[in-house]
Amino acid sequence: MRLTRYTDYAMRVLLYVGAQDEERLSPISEISRAYGISQNHLMKVVNDLVNAGYLESVRGRFGGVRLARPAAEINVGAVVRHTEEGFDLVDCGSCIIAPACGLTSALAEALAAFMKVLDGYSLADLLHKRQAFAALFGGELRRK
Amino acid sequence: MRLTRYTDYAMRVLLYVGAQDEERLSPISEISRAYGISQNHLMKVVNDLVNAGYLESVRGRFGGVRLARPAAEINVGAVVRHTEEGFDLVDCGSCIIAPACGLTSALAEALAAFMKVLDGYSLADLLHKRQAFAALFGGELRRK
Repeated sequence: MRLTRYTDYAMRVLLYVGAQDEERLSPISEISRAYGISQNHLMKVVNDLVNAGYLESVRGRFGGVRLARPAAEINVGAVVRHTEEGFDLVDCGSCIIAPACGLTSALAEALAAFMKVLDGYSLADLLHKRQAFAALFGGELRRK
Repeated sequence: MRLTRYTDYAMRVLLYVGAQDEERLSPISEISRAYGISQNHLMKVVNDLVNAGYLESVRGRFGGVRLARPAAEINVGAVVRHTEEGFDLVDCGSCIIAPACGLTSALAEALAAFMKVLDGYSLADLLHKRQAFAALFGGELRRK
């Protein structure tokens, strides 16, 4: 069972930016280097997060992105709902038993329990080891 | 978010076989036709379910598979744990923030809640519309 890579990248961007000093702008090139993820892949995710109101983007030579609201007000469940393409855990579309299948409702119930847990977390909760984050990013960036 | 196709197929096989009269042997070719899934794909899943003690296989012209134990004793959570390759919802292996990341534990907690729901279901629970299943399979098989 996996979340999409898109969700993975979105969460990584938010964690990176959330670990910075509040007003600091993180260039996408920097986030790209820190995670070893191509800038092209990140651009789409970042634009999406800007449009969704999670990030604020400033253009130009000293531009970059920062959180558009406090990390405590960014709900993890909401981000995952936004970035996941779909929550069809199995492909019922072509399945002849769909009308009678009890698996569908069991999976829906399991998914609701999954999301309820994520709904209980904010980005700030995930960043409780903020100092450790900053050190990891710092070390990585110095090496590059 | 998705379960693997392998899990999907395993559950479909169990649901198909579980919807049959108890002693009846379902040929793999029949299950293959019912779902429109290639026999090759199903063979691996069926062998796995036989080895895991969920199915009983009888060879020969009138052979096929049937449940190796009552549907009420086949736990959905246990099947999914068996058939899913991994439960790494995101790929932390190459991620530099892994040591500090609070997402990992939030996802682990969410996954536990997900599995707890499935652990509460047996195959028999999923087959509560058994008559409807049989009708769907019957109709489909007659059309082929």
